Amino acid sequence: MHNFTLHTPTKILFGEGQIAALREQLPSDARILITYGGGSVVRSGLLTRIREALSGMTLFEFGGIEPNPSYETLMGAVELARAERVDFLLAVGGGSVLDGTKFIAAAAPYEAADDPWHVLETVGEKVKTAIPLGSVLTLPATGSEMNMGAVITRKSTGDKQHFFSPCVMPRFAVLDPVLTYTLPARQVANGVVDAFVHVVEQYITFPVDAKVQDRFAEGLLLTLIEEGPKALAEPENYAVRANLMWSATMALNGLIGAGVPQDWATHMLGHELTARHGLDHAQTLAVLLPVLLDVKRDAKQDKLLQYAERVWGITTGDEALRIDLAIAATRAFFERMGVPTRLRDYGVDQPDVTTMLAKLQERGYTALGEHGDIDLETSRHIYEAAR
Amino acid sequence: MHNFTLHTPTKILFGEGQIAALREQLPSDARILITYGGGSVVRSGLLTRIREALSGMTLFEFGGIEPNPSYETLMGAVELARAERVDFLLAVGGGSVLDGTKFIAAAAPYEAADDPWHVLETVGEKVKTAIPLGSVLTLPATGSEMNMGAVITRKSTGDKQHFFSPCVMPRFAVLDPVLTYTLPARQVANGVVDAFVHVVEQYITFPVDAKVQDRFAEGLLLTLIEEGPKALAEPENYAVRANLMWSATMALNGLIGAGVPQDWATHMLGHELTARHGLDHAQTLAVLLPVLLDVKRDAKQDKLLQYAERVWGITTGDEALRIDLAIAATRAFFERMGVPTRLRDYGVDQPDVTTMLAKLQERGYTALGEHGDIDLETSRHIYEAAR
Repeated sequence: MHNFTLHTPTKILFGEGQIAALREQLPSDARILITYGGGSVVRSGLLTRIREALSGMTLFEFGGIEPNPSYETLMGAVELARAERVDFLLAVGGGSVLDGTKFIAAAAPYEAADDPWHVLETVGEKVKTAIPLGSVLTLPATGSEMNMGAVITRKSTGDKQHFFSPCVMPRFAVLDPVLTYTLPARQVANGVVDAFVHVVEQYITFPVDAKVQDRFAEGLLLTLIEEGPKALAEPENYAVRANLMWSATMALNGLIGAGVPQDWATHMLGHELTARHGLDHAQTLAVLLPVLLDVKRDAKQDKLLQYAERVWGITTGDEALRIDLAIAATRAFFERMGVPTRLRDYGVDQPDVTTMLAKLQERGYTALGEHGDIDLETSRHIYEAAR
Repeated sequence: MHNFTLHTPTKILFGEGQIAALREQLPSDARILITYGGGSVVRSGLLTRIREALSGMTLFEFGGIEPNPSYETLMGAVELARAERVDFLLAVGGGSVLDGTKFIAAAAPYEAADDPWHVLETVGEKVKTAIPLGSVLTLPATGSEMNMGAVITRKSTGDKQHFFSPCVMPRFAVLDPVLTYTLPARQVANGVVDAFVHVVEQYITFPVDAKVQDRFAEGLLLTLIEEGPKALAEPENYAVRANLMWSATMALNGLIGAGVPQDWATHMLGHELTARHGLDHAQTLAVLLPVLLDVKRDAKQDKLLQYAERVWGITTGDEALRIDLAIAATRAFFERMGVPTRLRDYGVDQPDVTTMLAKLQERGYTALGEHGDIDLETSRHIYEAAR
């Protein structure tokens, strides 16, 4: 096990009706900006419930944060936060709203004379302070409600930039599984795939004898495999939604990744697929992960065999066969969730590999993976094999 | 899954050499009281290393905190902390030093005119403020380094009182597995048993469809079963010590107990065995848990069968047999760790059941267990069957 630091101070309020506990999480004299995405939180009545729960407090609102939240949109909220001297942010939505709100939190107090986009540079090292934030989560997927990371897109250049800072770790997260009942199936499926791949990226690397982290990772994968299809079949099954919501939070709050190697190549390559070809984030992961596991099967052999046995119960056949079967099972699970796993399924018969590789190079992503050996040539191979 | 609140702000610094990161966890102008137990941290040189790591800072020291830390001893530290206006406590040791330090933290600022023992009443509700504390852990077992609980003994009356308060949640914990190499085998074994029973008490109750919590619990049990005997055989195996240390912290930091029923009867009954017959804390658990699981086998049937299958791989035979085998396997594991599981093994042929039941009644522990149905008669049965 590698040395690690783990600090996860987000207070979790989990379960039906926990919005009732929202008010006491916020300073009574706070000037609160509620951030949200499209109209779903309006239509569902959630925003009204939150306004009622916080009645008498000083509230501002900023809606319209889109999937893959954009700098261009978010700067409107930054201006509002500055003008109204907002001192608490309440994100109501899924990972995009949370990520966008983290940018607002870091950018509003950013005092450099230059463009706040630059606060994202050096993956967050420039963030020295931020407006405190909390969230009411409506979509389990990204884990952003209990971590210090975010991904922001700049539409004008097609850049997708991630950053990390303890300053943007949410103070609290309200996780009410009932709020997820009305999600479209596509978003539920995407969320399950996203959480699944988050776990795999911290698990299928090489062994460092970190038994707790491995077993926690396997427990999350097994839960997602069991509960994911049920969530599509029975949208109002509380236990299923609760298990998925908690799995997604645990998948990326630092716990299973503490002290182990990690391989975020699938996410990095996926960001370019979204930017260039418009696939949903989770769709890019479903397309790329099975190929990446196959391409890196030698380097990942020990963990792939462990994954085959403990997650899929595959114990017979030679090692190559067991790995083939585990990768096939992974692909079949994504397909069963209704998320196709080939680029051609999304109408992308000829991926623009040249442009995507150029972007990877521009960002310095030329040595990805747990060994730093996923170079541009390997990335090309992965993109092409994903057709 | 039940609703829950989970808040675990302790910063973990895990791994060999993390004492180097100690200084930056402490306010530079703090008046720090270092607390410790017997002489082992002196003999091992750890205290010297910590003094060096904090050279130039304002340090005070209080040693001699005993196993089952006593009010009588700790009041000496409370007086020192008050006299020297200490504003940070650094516990160096195992669970007893940590628990004792939590009492010091709560009692020193306790301003009521009466005896600080009363700060423990109503299991901690009276604690409104505390001196902040951190720790350097030397013995993985109790999980006290990342939770808000403590148990204090009053020698004069034989009382053993637990209390909980978010005010005494440690700010940080340094977990260096190397520091555990020199522990006596008995303490290593006790620690493994203690952590194992912590997990069981949050796991073998009744199912509430909390799949993540169940699988995390099973992962910890499997790790303790695999690594415990190795720790006795190979005291300087870093990976083994690291896995045990992390398991013990995870066993009682709130994570696996979030949203699930719990049964702390083994601990409650065990405290009286320690008070009356002097067994080590973990010895009481090894003696009582197998009996309790047998006595409550009907109420715990579903989870006992799950435990049998997922932890011990027991899948054949009828339900009663599988439960018998799982309980036998539990007992055999404790024995293999060198911790006997019958009172007679400790020379207690005639346990003073009358006195222990009177103490349970005095404390109001007459309805223990996840269903509140472990009454004094059931407790009598458990004590007598443990001979």
